[in-house]
Amino acid sequence: MNILVLNGPNLNLLGKREPSIYGTETLSDIEERINRHCENKGISISFYQSNHEGDIIDRIQEADGKFDGIILNAGAYTHYSYAIRDAISSISVPVIEVHLSNIDAREQFRSTSVIAPVCKGRITGLGSLGYLLAIDYFCYSQI
Amino acid sequence: MNILVLNGPNLNLLGKREPSIYGTETLSDIEERINRHCENKGISISFYQSNHEGDIIDRIQEADGKFDGIILNAGAYTHYSYAIRDAISSISVPVIEVHLSNIDAREQFRSTSVIAPVCKGRITGLGSLGYLLAIDYFCYSQI
Amino acid sequence: MNILVLNGPNLNLLGKREPSIYGTETLSDIEERINRHCENKGISISFYQSNHEGDIIDRIQEADGKFDGIILNAGAYTHYSYAIRDAISSISVPVIEVHLSNIDAREQFRSTSVIAPVCKGRITGLGSLGYLLAIDYFCYSQI
Amino acid sequence: MNILVLNGPNLNLLGKREPSIYGTETLSDIEERINRHCENKGISISFYQSNHEGDIIDRIQEADGKFDGIILNAGAYTHYSYAIRDAISSISVPVIEVHLSNIDAREQFRSTSVIAPVCKGRITGLGSLGYLLAIDYFCYSQI
Amino acid sequence: MNILVLNGPNLNLLGKREPSIYGTETLSDIEERINRHCENKGISISFYQSNHEGDIIDRIQEADGKFDGIILNAGAYTHYSYAIRDAISSISVPVIEVHLSNIDAREQFRSTSVIAPVCKGRITGLGSLGYLLAIDYFCYSQI
Amino acid sequence: MNILVLNGPNLNLLGKREPSIYGTETLSDIEERINRHCENKGISISFYQSNHEGDIIDRIQEADGKFDGIILNAGAYTHYSYAIRDAISSISVPVIEVHLSNIDAREQFRSTSVIAPVCKGRITGLGSLGYLLAIDYFCYSQI
Amino acid sequence: MNILVLNGPNLNLLGKREPSIYGTETLSDIEERINRHCENKGISISFYQSNHEGDIIDRIQEADGKFDGIILNAGAYTHYSYAIRDAISSISVPVIEVHLSNIDAREQFRSTSVIAPVCKGRITGLGSLGYLLAIDYFCYSQI
Amino acid sequence: MNILVLNGPNLNLLGKREPSIYGTETLSDIEERINRHCENKGISISFYQSNHEGDIIDRIQEADGKFDGIILNAGAYTHYSYAIRDAISSISVPVIEVHLSNIDAREQFRSTSVIAPVCKGRITGLGSLGYLLAIDYFCYSQI
Amino acid sequence: MNILVLNGPNLNLLGKREPSIYGTETLSDIEERINRHCENKGISISFYQSNHEGDIIDRIQEADGKFDGIILNAGAYTHYSYAIRDAISSISVPVIEVHLSNIDAREQFRSTSVIAPVCKGRITGLGSLGYLLAIDYFCYSQI
Amino acid sequence: MNILVLNGPNLNLLGKREPSIYGTETLSDIEERINRHCENKGISISFYQSNHEGDIIDRIQEADGKFDGIILNAGAYTHYSYAIRDAISSISVPVIEVHLSNIDAREQFRSTSVIAPVCKGRITGLGSLGYLLAIDYFCYSQI
Amino acid sequence: MNILVLNGPNLNLLGKREPSIYGTETLSDIEERINRHCENKGISISFYQSNHEGDIIDRIQEADGKFDGIILNAGAYTHYSYAIRDAISSISVPVIEVHLSNIDAREQFRSTSVIAPVCKGRITGLGSLGYLLAIDYFCYSQI
Amino acid sequence: MNILVLNGPNLNLLGKREPSIYGTETLSDIEERINRHCENKGISISFYQSNHEGDIIDRIQEADGKFDGIILNAGAYTHYSYAIRDAISSISVPVIEVHLSNIDAREQFRSTSVIAPVCKGRITGLGSLGYLLAIDYFCYSQI
Repeated sequence: MNILVLNGPNLNLLGKREPSIYGTETLSDIEERINRHCENKGISISFYQSNHEGDIIDRIQEADGKFDGIILNAGAYTHYSYAIRDAISSISVPVIEVHLSNIDAREQFRSTSVIAPVCKGRITGLGSLGYLLAIDYFCYSQI
Repeated sequence: MNILVLNGPNLNLLGKREPSIYGTETLSDIEERINRHCENKGISISFYQSNHEGDIIDRIQEADGKFDGIILNAGAYTHYSYAIRDAISSISVPVIEVHLSNIDAREQFRSTSVIAPVCKGRITGLGSLGYLLAIDYFCYSQI
Repeated sequence: MNILVLNGPNLNLLGKREPSIYGTETLSDIEERINRHCENKGISISFYQSNHEGDIIDRIQEADGKFDGIILNAGAYTHYSYAIRDAISSISVPVIEVHLSNIDAREQFRSTSVIAPVCKGRITGLGSLGYLLAIDYFCYSQI
Repeated sequence: MNILVLNGPNLNLLGKREPSIYGTETLSDIEERINRHCENKGISISFYQSNHEGDIIDRIQEADGKFDGIILNAGAYTHYSYAIRDAISSISVPVIEVHLSNIDAREQFRSTSVIAPVCKGRITGLGSLGYLLAIDYFCYSQI
Repeated sequence: MNILVLNGPNLNLLGKREPSIYGTETLSDIEERINRHCENKGISISFYQSNHEGDIIDRIQEADGKFDGIILNAGAYTHYSYAIRDAISSISVPVIEVHLSNIDAREQFRSTSVIAPVCKGRITGLGSLGYLLAIDYFCYSQI
Repeated sequence: MNILVLNGPNLNLLGKREPSIYGTETLSDIEERINRHCENKGISISFYQSNHEGDIIDRIQEADGKFDGIILNAGAYTHYSYAIRDAISSISVPVIEVHLSNIDAREQFRSTSVIAPVCKGRITGLGSLGYLLAIDYFCYSQI
Repeated sequence: MNILVLNGPNLNLLGKREPSIYGTETLSDIEERINRHCENKGISISFYQSNHEGDIIDRIQEADGKFDGIILNAGAYTHYSYAIRDAISSISVPVIEVHLSNIDAREQFRSTSVIAPVCKGRITGLGSLGYLLAIDYFCYSQI
Repeated sequence: MNILVLNGPNLNLLGKREPSIYGTETLSDIEERINRHCENKGISISFYQSNHEGDIIDRIQEADGKFDGIILNAGAYTHYSYAIRDAISSISVPVIEVHLSNIDAREQFRSTSVIAPVCKGRITGLGSLGYLLAIDYFCYSQI
Repeated sequence: MNILVLNGPNLNLLGKREPSIYGTETLSDIEERINRHCENKGISISFYQSNHEGDIIDRIQEADGKFDGIILNAGAYTHYSYAIRDAISSISVPVIEVHLSNIDAREQFRSTSVIAPVCKGRITGLGSLGYLLAIDYFCYSQI
Repeated sequence: MNILVLNGPNLNLLGKREPSIYGTETLSDIEERINRHCENKGISISFYQSNHEGDIIDRIQEADGKFDGIILNAGAYTHYSYAIRDAISSISVPVIEVHLSNIDAREQFRSTSVIAPVCKGRITGLGSLGYLLAIDYFCYSQI
Repeated sequence: MNILVLNGPNLNLLGKREPSIYGTETLSDIEERINRHCENKGISISFYQSNHEGDIIDRIQEADGKFDGIILNAGAYTHYSYAIRDAISSISVPVIEVHLSNIDAREQFRSTSVIAPVCKGRITGLGSLGYLLAIDYFCYSQI
Repeated sequence: MNILVLNGPNLNLLGKREPSIYGTETLSDIEERINRHCENKGISISFYQSNHEGDIIDRIQEADGKFDGIILNAGAYTHYSYAIRDAISSISVPVIEVHLSNIDAREQFRSTSVIAPVCKGRITGLGSLGYLLAIDYFCYSQI
C-alpha cells in the first residue's frame, strides 16, 4: 500500500513554531515516527511539504493512480483554498485531513475547513499521533 | 486502562437508520468490534448509549476518576448541547469526539460542534473505525 | 390504522398556559375531541406527552413498525432539537408536525423548525383542529 | 359557506411541472377533487389562478365581504410579496396558506414565507390533500 | 406645474384597511384634500393607483417629459421592487417617496426601502399631510 | 405655537462642509429662512445647535411642556445615539426628524436611524426646505 | 430553429435610460441587430418586452414546445422574482440569461440572480453583443 | 414565603468544576449559606438540582401555586432551552435568573439567554451571593 | 465603605418617563430609598446623574481610590459606549451594572451591553430594588 | 488580433475530473476546438494553464501590451483570489471570465466571484462553447 | 508647521490604565517625548485631551485653518463616533489616526474604525512611537 | 540593523497600476527612496517582491535569525492569506504591515486584514512614506 503524507504551509517549521500549540517535535521527527509505525506493515510512505498552494495541488493531482491514500495537513490553506478542494474532488484517491492542534479551540477562522466536505474524514487535535491513526485507518479498512 | 464509549441519541438504531449514510453495522456489531480490537491490550471497555441529554451528562460526570478516556459520539447533541460541553470541561478525563459519517459533507448545521473546543480531539467520517482509532490514540499516548 | 399523537414540552399545561395564545382547551379536552373525531373510522389512537426530549426520541423510535402515522407537536423542541429530527429521519413512519398557534406570527425564533425538513408536512395556526386535520390526512391518503 | 381557492404563479402548470416534486395531478384535477369533496356540505367554491401578483392582490381585496374563507397557494410570491401580505391583512376574511410540497425540505429561500404571519394558519407538504384539509378546517370551525 | 400622485398596492383600501395604522380617510378623501391644497397655486394634479407593479413602472416611464414631479407611495413594493427603482432612475423627473405611517416603527422589513436611494427625498409618518408637504416642496423649490 | 429647531453635530459648519452634499447655505441662512417662513403664522421659533450628545439630550428633556413640536436634525448621532432616542420617547412633544441630504443614497451606515422609530415622522433629502415642510406639518396638523 | 428574445422591465427605455451604463442603442436597434445576425442562419426570432412580471411568466410558460431556446434579460426581476425562476424550471426549453452591463460591478443587490441556478448559463457585461453570443450558442450547440 | 432554588446541569459539580471560574464552594456549601441567610426571615426554601432539561421543566410546572418565587440557575440550558423558557412563561410564579460567573465576559454563546425575556430579572457575576440577593429581592418586594 | 451611585442619560426623568416601563418613582425617591437602606450600615453613598457620556467617564475615572464600589446604570450608553467600558476597565473599583427594567424583554438593541464584560456583575429587571441589592452585595462581600 | 486563453487550477484535469459536471472533453480537446474556431479569422491564440496563483498573476501582468484580450477561467481562484483581481485591474487588456459549468447552480461558495467586478464580462454554464463565444465577442466588438 | 495632537477618552489615564496593554508612560511623558522629537524641526505642537465626544468635535472643527495636521487618537470613540467622522470630513486639515496598541489583536469590536475612511492614514500598534512617526510623516511630506 | 522589505502581488506594477490610487512612483523609485533614507543610519536593507504566496511565506520563514525587522506590504494577500499569517506568527522577527493607499476607504474587502493580529503594527494610507516611517520605527525602538 502506497501512502502520501502531504504537509502544507509552515509545517516545515514544526518544533520551532509556537511550541505551546504545536509541540517540540520537528517535521523530521514526525516523519521518522511515521516510518517506524509503518515498518513491517507493507506500507510505502512518501513525504512532501510545501508552502506553495500550487505545489500542493500539483502533488494531489499526480497522486491519482499512484497512491492508495493521502494524508493531508493543509495548514492554513485548509481555511480558504477552494483550489485544493477542487484538486481533491478531481481524483479518486481517498484523502484524510489531519491537524496537529485542536483547531476548533483556537481562532474562529480555524474552525472552517473548506476541504473537509470532499475528504474521506478528519482527525484533529491528537498531535502527531493523528498521522499514525490515519495510517491505521488505511490498514484497517484494507482488511 | 479503562475507557468509556458513550453514544448519544439515535445511535441505538444503527444498521437500520439511513444505512446509506451510517452503514449496516448495528451498535452491537460495533461494540463487539471494539471489544475484539481491545483484546490483549489491557484495556477495559464500558459501553453506554442514551437518547437523553441528561443521562449523557450524568455519565460524563460519573466518569471522572473512574476512566482514563472517554470516546463520545454525541449524535445530534453535538450541534447544540452546551450542557454536555460544560460537563466535559468540568472533568479531567480526556474526551475524543467521534462521528461515523463525514458531518462536514452533510447539512450545514452538522458542521457546527459546540463540544469540539473542549474535547481533546476529533475523528470524523471514518465509520466505525473511528472508535478503534480513538482507542489506538489512548494506547499510543500512554506509552 | 394506528396513529400516535405525540405532544412535547409544556403542552400538558394547555388550557392554563397563556390562554390568549393557546386557548382554553386542556390537553384532555383535545384528546377527547380527537377520540370523538376518530370514532367509526377504524382508527386506533395512542396519546403520549412528555417534557423530556429523550422520552420523545424513545417514543418516535419505538413507533417504527407499530404505527401508521405520527402527529407530533414538539413544542419548543421544534426550534432546536436536531436529536428529535434525527429520530424522525431514522424511522419510516410518516410524521406530521402540528402547532396550535400561528408560530410564524410570534417571536422570531419560533419561525425556525429544525424538524420540518424531515416531516411529511406541517399544519400550523389552526388550533386543536390541526390534530383533526392531520388525522383526516392519514384517512384520505389511505383511500 | 363561500370559499375562494386562489392559486398563484406556475400552478397552472401542475401535472406537467417538475412532477417528481408536485405530482401528476393537473390544476383541473385538483379543482375537480375539491368540488367532489365539497358536495353535500353546503359549500360554494370559486377558483382563480393567475401568474400576476397584482391580480392576486385584486382578488384578495374583492373577496372581502363575499367569501367566508380564502385558501391561498401563492406559489413563489409566498417568499417575497409583501404586497400580497398587505392585501391579506387589509381584509377580514381568514386566509389559510397551502403548499403542495414540503417547502421546508427544498431550497433555503422556500422556507421563508412573508405572508405566514398574517394568515390564519398554514398547511404544507400534504399534496393536493392540503386543499381538502383547509376546507375541512372551515367546516369544522363553523360548527 | 404638473404633478403625478402615484399610489401603489392596497392604498385603494385606505379608510377601511387597518385604520389604527392608516387612519380613516379614504384615498378619495386624500385626493380631494390634495386638490383643495393645490387650488390657486397653478398646479395640475393627476392621480393614479394600481396594485400591479408593472402598471406602476409603466406610469413612471410615461411620466417622463409630461410631469414636473412625482409623489410616489409605492406601498409594499417599496421594500423589494428593484424594477420600480430602475424605472425611477431611468427618468429625469424628481420623485418624492411618501408613506402615511412611520414605517420605521413597524415590522423590520418595512425599514428597508429599495427605492429611496434613487428618489429625491422621503416624507414618512406624517399621514396624508405627507402628500401636501411633497407638493409644498415642489412649489417652494420652484421659486 | 412654539417650535424648537434642534441641530446636532457638525451642522454648525453648513455652507463650508462638503458643499456638494450639503449645499452652500450656512446654518444662519437656514435659520433666517425658517424665520421668514414663520412670519405671520403665529409661530415662535427657537434654535439650538450643539456637537455634544449630552446637550441635545438636555434640550430635548427641557422642551417638554415648553414646546409644541421639535424639529430635530441629529446629524451623525442619528445612527447610534440610543440615548437621544430614549430622550425623545421620554417626552410627549412630537419630534420630526429632518436630514438635508438623501441619507439613503450615501454610505450604508447612514441608512440606519436609531431615532426614527420614536419620532412622529421623517423628512429627508429635501435640503433646507425639509425644515420648512416640518413647520408646515405642525401648522397643518393644528388646524 | 425558433428563439424567443424576452426582455424585462425598463429595457424598453434603452438608449434613453442611463446611457453611461446601458449605451445609446435603443431596444429596436438591438432587435434589428439581432435580426441581421440571424439572417441566413435558419433562425426564426421572436421578440417580447414587458414591465410586468406576470406577463414574463406567461410568455415563458407559453414558449414550452414552441421555441428551441429563450434568451432572457429579466432586468431587475433577476434579483428577486422567484416566480420567474419557477416558470423557467417548469419548462424544458433552455434559457440563457443575458445582461447588458457588468452587474457584478454595480450595486450589491445586482450581484444576486435568483434565476441563474435554473438557467442553462449566463452572459453578462458584453453589451448588446451578449444577445448575439447567446444566439451563437444555440447555433453551435445544435451542430 | 416559599422559594424554590432550582439549579441546572453541572451545578452539582460546583467546587470541583473549573474553580478559577466558579469558585471553591460546593453546591451544598451554597445551599447551607442560603439556609443561614433565610433564618428568622419566615422563608421556607426548597432546593433541586438536575442535569435533565425535562426534570427542570417538570419542576417549574409543579412550582405553580406552591411557591412564591423561583431562583433559577439553568446552567448551559440558559443558552438554548426554549422549552424551559416556555415552562417559565406558562406559570405565574416570578422567576429570577441567577449565574455565578459573569457570563458576558466569557465565550460568546454565553451572552445569549433565551430565558431572560420571560424572567422577572437577572443577577449575574456576583458568585453565590447572587442567590442571597435574589432572596432579598423577594423579601424586599413583599413588604 | 464609600459607594458611588452613578446614573446615566434620561434617568433624571424617572417617574415621568414611560411609567409603564420604569415605574412612578422619581430619581429622588430612589436616592432617598437607597439612603434609608444604608442607614446604620456604615456606608457613605454619593449620587451623580448626567446625560453626558464624557461626564460619566470623568466620574468613573475620579472614583478610583475614592470609592469601594460603583453602582452604574448607564442608561442607553450601555448599548454602545465603548468609551465608558474603557473607563471601567481602567480603574480598580468594582462596578455593578444595574437596570430598572428587564432589558432582555424589550427592543433587540437593549439586550447588548458593551460594558457588561468589564463589570463585576449585573442586576436587571428588579426595579429600584436592584440598587439596594447591589449595595447588599458590597456589604455581604465585605464580611 | 492576439488572444490569451488562461486556465487556472485543476482545469488540466478536464475530461477526467467529475465528468458529470465538466463533460468529457480534455483541455487539449478544448484548445484544439478553439484553434479550429479561430482559423481564417486573423486571430492568434496562446494557451496557458497553471495550478499556481502566482503564475496566473505573472501571466496576466505580462499580457499587458502583448494581447488584445484575455479569456480567463480562474477555476476555484475565482472565489477568493483578490490578488488575481488586482492583477486584472492593473492592466488595460479586457478580460472575459469564463466558466464551463453553471457555477450558480452548485455549492454556495461558487456563486461568489471576486474577479467579476474588474472583468469586462462573464460567460458561464455554456461548456467549452463559452470560450468560443468569448472569442466571438472580441471579433464582433472589433468590427 | 502647526500640529495638533488630539487624544480621546481614557488616554489621560495612560501609565496607570492596563499597563500590560498600554505601557507605563503617562500622557505627560508622551507629550514631553513628542516635544523633544519636534525640537529644531520648526514644528509647533498643541496638545488636547478630552473624554467628551463633543469637545473632540469642537476641537477638530476649530483646527481648520489653524493647523497643518492633526494626530488623532480617538480612543474608544474610534469604533462608533460617526459624529467625529463627520467632523474630520468637514475640514481640510489632514488627520492621521494613531493607536498605541495593536487594536486588531484585541477584542473584535476594536478592529472596526468608523473614522479610518476619512483620515489620511493610520498608524497602529507601535506604542507612543506612533505619534512621532505621524509627525515625521508631516515633515517628510512637506519637503 | 538588517531590515527586509517584502512586497507582495502586483506591487511590481507600481507607477503603472491605477496611478490615481497608488501614485506614479515605481517600485524601484520607492526602493531607491528607502535606500537614501537609510544612508548613514547603519541599516542594511534587502528588497524582495513576488506575486507568489508561497514565495512570500518562504522568505518570511528564512528571515528568522537573519533580519531584525520585516516591513511587509502583502498586497491583496493581506485579505485572505492565513498561510502568510501563520508564517509571521512562526518567527520571532517583528513585522510591520504597510499599505500605500488608505485601504479602509476603498472596497469593503480591503478593510479586513487577516495578518494584522500577528504583526507588530500597521501603517496605512501614507503612500511610500509608510515604508520610511516603518524604518524610523525600527531605529527609534532600538535606541
